[in-house]
Amino acid sequence: MIKAGIIGATGYAGNELVRILTNHPETQIIWYGSKSYEGQNYSDVYRNMTEIADDTCKGDNIEELAKQADVIFTATPQGYLAQILTDSVLENTKIIDLSADFRLKDVGIYEQWYKIQHKRPDLIDEAVYGLCEINRDKINQNTRLIANPGCYTTTAIMGLYPAVKEGLIDPDTIIVDAKSGTSGAGRGAKTANLFCEVNESIKAYGIGNHRHTPEIEEQLGYACGRDIKIIFTPHLVPMQRGILATSYAKLTPGTDEAKIRRVYEQYYKNEKFVRLLEEGVFPETRFTKCSNYLDINFKTEPRTGRLIVVSALDNLIKGAAGQAVQNMNILFGLPESTGLETVPVIV
Amino acid sequence: MIKAGIIGATGYAGNELVRILTNHPETQIIWYGSKSYEGQNYSDVYRNMTEIADDTCKGDNIEELAKQADVIFTATPQGYLAQILTDSVLENTKIIDLSADFRLKDVGIYEQWYKIQHKRPDLIDEAVYGLCEINRDKINQNTRLIANPGCYTTTAIMGLYPAVKEGLIDPDTIIVDAKSGTSGAGRGAKTANLFCEVNESIKAYGIGNHRHTPEIEEQLGYACGRDIKIIFTPHLVPMQRGILATSYAKLTPGTDEAKIRRVYEQYYKNEKFVRLLEEGVFPETRFTKCSNYLDINFKTEPRTGRLIVVSALDNLIKGAAGQAVQNMNILFGLPESTGLETVPVIV
Amino acid sequence: MIKAGIIGATGYAGNELVRILTNHPETQIIWYGSKSYEGQNYSDVYRNMTEIADDTCKGDNIEELAKQADVIFTATPQGYLAQILTDSVLENTKIIDLSADFRLKDVGIYEQWYKIQHKRPDLIDEAVYGLCEINRDKINQNTRLIANPGCYTTTAIMGLYPAVKEGLIDPDTIIVDAKSGTSGAGRGAKTANLFCEVNESIKAYGIGNHRHTPEIEEQLGYACGRDIKIIFTPHLVPMQRGILATSYAKLTPGTDEAKIRRVYEQYYKNEKFVRLLEEGVFPETRFTKCSNYLDINFKTEPRTGRLIVVSALDNLIKGAAGQAVQNMNILFGLPESTGLETVPVIV
Amino acid sequence: MIKAGIIGATGYAGNELVRILTNHPETQIIWYGSKSYEGQNYSDVYRNMTEIADDTCKGDNIEELAKQADVIFTATPQGYLAQILTDSVLENTKIIDLSADFRLKDVGIYEQWYKIQHKRPDLIDEAVYGLCEINRDKINQNTRLIANPGCYTTTAIMGLYPAVKEGLIDPDTIIVDAKSGTSGAGRGAKTANLFCEVNESIKAYGIGNHRHTPEIEEQLGYACGRDIKIIFTPHLVPMQRGILATSYAKLTPGTDEAKIRRVYEQYYKNEKFVRLLEEGVFPETRFTKCSNYLDINFKTEPRTGRLIVVSALDNLIKGAAGQAVQNMNILFGLPESTGLETVPVIV
Repeated sequence: MIKAGIIGATGYAGNELVRILTNHPETQIIWYGSKSYEGQNYSDVYRNMTEIADDTCKGDNIEELAKQADVIFTATPQGYLAQILTDSVLENTKIIDLSADFRLKDVGIYEQWYKIQHKRPDLIDEAVYGLCEINRDKINQNTRLIANPGCYTTTAIMGLYPAVKEGLIDPDTIIVDAKSGTSGAGRGAKTANLFCEVNESIKAYGIGNHRHTPEIEEQLGYACGRDIKIIFTPHLVPMQRGILATSYAKLTPGTDEAKIRRVYEQYYKNEKFVRLLEEGVFPETRFTKCSNYLDINFKTEPRTGRLIVVSALDNLIKGAAGQAVQNMNILFGLPESTGLETVPVIV
Repeated sequence: MIKAGIIGATGYAGNELVRILTNHPETQIIWYGSKSYEGQNYSDVYRNMTEIADDTCKGDNIEELAKQADVIFTATPQGYLAQILTDSVLENTKIIDLSADFRLKDVGIYEQWYKIQHKRPDLIDEAVYGLCEINRDKINQNTRLIANPGCYTTTAIMGLYPAVKEGLIDPDTIIVDAKSGTSGAGRGAKTANLFCEVNESIKAYGIGNHRHTPEIEEQLGYACGRDIKIIFTPHLVPMQRGILATSYAKLTPGTDEAKIRRVYEQYYKNEKFVRLLEEGVFPETRFTKCSNYLDINFKTEPRTGRLIVVSALDNLIKGAAGQAVQNMNILFGLPESTGLETVPVIV
Repeated sequence: MIKAGIIGATGYAGNELVRILTNHPETQIIWYGSKSYEGQNYSDVYRNMTEIADDTCKGDNIEELAKQADVIFTATPQGYLAQILTDSVLENTKIIDLSADFRLKDVGIYEQWYKIQHKRPDLIDEAVYGLCEINRDKINQNTRLIANPGCYTTTAIMGLYPAVKEGLIDPDTIIVDAKSGTSGAGRGAKTANLFCEVNESIKAYGIGNHRHTPEIEEQLGYACGRDIKIIFTPHLVPMQRGILATSYAKLTPGTDEAKIRRVYEQYYKNEKFVRLLEEGVFPETRFTKCSNYLDINFKTEPRTGRLIVVSALDNLIKGAAGQAVQNMNILFGLPESTGLETVPVIV
Repeated sequence: MIKAGIIGATGYAGNELVRILTNHPETQIIWYGSKSYEGQNYSDVYRNMTEIADDTCKGDNIEELAKQADVIFTATPQGYLAQILTDSVLENTKIIDLSADFRLKDVGIYEQWYKIQHKRPDLIDEAVYGLCEINRDKINQNTRLIANPGCYTTTAIMGLYPAVKEGLIDPDTIIVDAKSGTSGAGRGAKTANLFCEVNESIKAYGIGNHRHTPEIEEQLGYACGRDIKIIFTPHLVPMQRGILATSYAKLTPGTDEAKIRRVYEQYYKNEKFVRLLEEGVFPETRFTKCSNYLDINFKTEPRTGRLIVVSALDNLIKGAAGQAVQNMNILFGLPESTGLETVPVIV
């Protein structure tokens, strides 16, 4: 049994980690970390967990936790892990970080977009960017720190990766128009996230400055071998879970629909958690709800010479806790889908 | 492996059966039955099932199915099973019926409330009313036909059963005010169930004549040993899943809160799927969403001498497909929670 | 033109007052009061009001406001008006209070249920309980203080009043099971009211101790001429607006459906804002959304000898701001429906 | 009083026409047309209209209606008006058509995108495209036929018009990513529009072939004086009302944020129903809900040299019935905002 600790177990991603790890046959949660609810029963915070996770929430003593846990998941605010992470922690345990602290390789870009001084830039190089289907080969038993990708980022990158990698589109023309459920905004008590403010409305936010932008640019930049700039516009949708990204880019000369399909099939046909839908069927977030699946399809628009890609996932699972557990499975040599085989809940 | 067939696999309860049985370690679905979609791929109807249940939907040839399947689940309109069920089917397989055909022991009451002539009244006595926690002892290897209880019914009966059985309330004063998500209305293309007609509204329906009324009366009547009449009022709530029942009844003399708690604890403390919440904490449907749990709590109201019981469950799981699988587990001697241990999804 | 001031203009009821008074042909808003947003533009808080209400929010200087305004609406927390109200204010202006401070005639009951010491018990007798259809005759040009009824209260009382007044039911058996949209919980930044906590769930709350209970009891007690005790259970529904109350009581001997209909028709046929629906058609909150209508219908249940009444309204309009404006119209001798003739928005 | 008839009064746009015209001080509805509900009481179909519109629904006898009505609104399926419209109708009355039949000037494009043979191509030239703020000067007392613009179209065109007209962007790079509430899908009883299929999900549809595409292209083509091709992708959002369009295009050399703001202010500062929001504040559909407002703002993205425009409206009002009434006001010489001054309902 893998002994797992969670720091930040009472946020929405944290709760999802608890839920997935509770059903995972090879793990045992030994630490429900929550500064805000320290000393309270976890199931008093999340009453769905009554008689399932009746342990007491613990504080953020990462040094102590590192001695007890085989792996620590951190689902904490930006900057927090970089601040508390020490060398001795990394000597004792593995870290899978759901925050953005170690996702960007360029610390300057991190500090510019997040407006935070990075406390452990020396560890950035060591961290593996845990986009499982792309980077699983970079994870091995010596890996100590995995930067779990963002939710929007996973949706966008996975939708565009084969096209960028194989030169099917001009990366400088990429526009990602993404739509997210409200759990992505977190569990903080903010007026803007009240039911009466969110329901029956849709809005764009973070236009031109959302912090997942450089993460998408960096990863797609690796795919095409040079720096790129994209447009990324997130929207808030009155639903709890799910992200749908509609991405646009200019086709490169000679690229047609059939060629793109061959490429995407080649990239994804053996990926359990990536489903390339059949021609003419496009992702809907509900097809992936409560599962680790990421659905993709595309269409060329010959009138304007563009590719349109639609990709969708559950932001709390493949976009956060599910992918984190998938990374844990890779890290510990388990079958990658262990504990993640749940069927999407369409209704 | 238990070979399971489903007749009515493309309704919402049918899809939930598919979902649960797919994750069940001891079953294999051999027949996705759907008259409406016969010949189509199951995952074309429910695209969440892409790469998971890519079989073709079959018709309703129950004789043929009975030869192949160890158990048949019927999630069909009222009256349909009674019409197609034959003796040879029952000789070859087990039936777990999610419709109301064999729930009421009094065929006259069935015909009066359902406005249908019952085609197989001779089989009613044989059928076991599959309210697992109450009737599990009546199910054994000779059982051929289980009448799976209704969703409202399970919520109401389980909330009131200990109080009625132990004489803590006057059964003739029972009022059950129940609230259901919209999946309970089925997947039929009706104007009344369109998003724009259901969202941002609540209504009562079937006032004084909903067909779950006699089912509650019959079962609670068994508990107290005599015929009773109750009031049952269902409401439609703009959510997908969940039923919450708020039930009221006059306390019998000498009954107080502490006594009721002792009784309810005694009845439910060993029941995995029934959670009696701690004092002062009341059920919310989301605590049970996507799980087989049924949550209960109560409060006495000394000013008026009444008991108020609140009970909640997921109408598609503990109120339909989950309880059906729980009945299958009992029937086949498996641990009762096999395949049903999923943690509620609160967000 | 009536000069109107609002204290508490940035809560949901306050915003609804602004909306209704802006469209009212005989009023002018001269004071957008909001302690929390003092100095900010009103339309920066409620961006729907851009180019419509671009005034600056003012503080709560009620003495100054009383000199300028013909009428002050207070949509403030319980206890606040009683604390700031002075004799000179009442000499200068009229007050229509949307809080509970002057609704209950028995100050002991107020202090017991609200856990607040009442600062101006001497004014309670003077205040008129502004349930327009019942008490309009008590409002005249000398009226200085109107206690606008609660939202649940209006729904419940109006549904039961004729039956109680005419002795058609036994008032001691009344149970009011009410369901409310989330705007009733206010605009405070609380975790419990976040979209992800409210959506896809229903819960009961305030079981046996909700503060609208004594208000219903007092008013229905006046109707039948004696003290009564009822059960009132509110529920939170995942929608923004609307309250539906399902009320139950024992019929008195000799009462039948036809007699009740005659009585209800007599009470409500001339009431513009109360619609007794035709037999067999029951209220849905959407029939009243964004309007001042209150819809009612009922059914007798002969099997159990009970009356079931369903009543519904928009909690922010007939349950708050609309009724407040209706009271203002009565107070100033305007036609009662002035500014309130908006048609319900069903979609 | 203007005598108004409605053909198609029981669809969602038709109901909205009824609602707006009922509150309009200068009109009287003389004909509630509905083939499906002919002979039924209008308020039995839309119970919000009880005691407000208790007339009987009439059939589609447009010849008879034309003799009685000063204006006829047609909210009918594509192709239907072109089929029933006669010269004598146009001699007797005015037509404001909410369908697409007379929106496109190029009948070949109409037939290609709508897959319908146009029955009255001879009338296309005469029809005025009723985008009020752009084309009001083309409407006068001789106008007989107004083609009311589509909902997506109004949102997209109004957001981009000043930029295209003034050459601030390259029109061949336009991408409109639009998101709509579900009322846009109509009131037909389709499984895809059931609450349980729409709620908690978002999807794109009509990718590359939605019929509002050529309408946007034609109108923006007029603005820049040449044929253009754009990308338009609509999405279905789990809400009832509202459209938000996020549009992208390449800035032309020398264009900066300040210049664009000057242009947009010049175009829209005197438009009552178009609100250019202050810098940094972006439209949300709820700011316009239940009103005739269309909100717009934009941002330049210097990293990629693009303009991002966000525009939003209520699809049933400014996107359908409200704009139709605005056109009627222009046609009959009334102040343009008569009957349309309702304040948006944010909650």
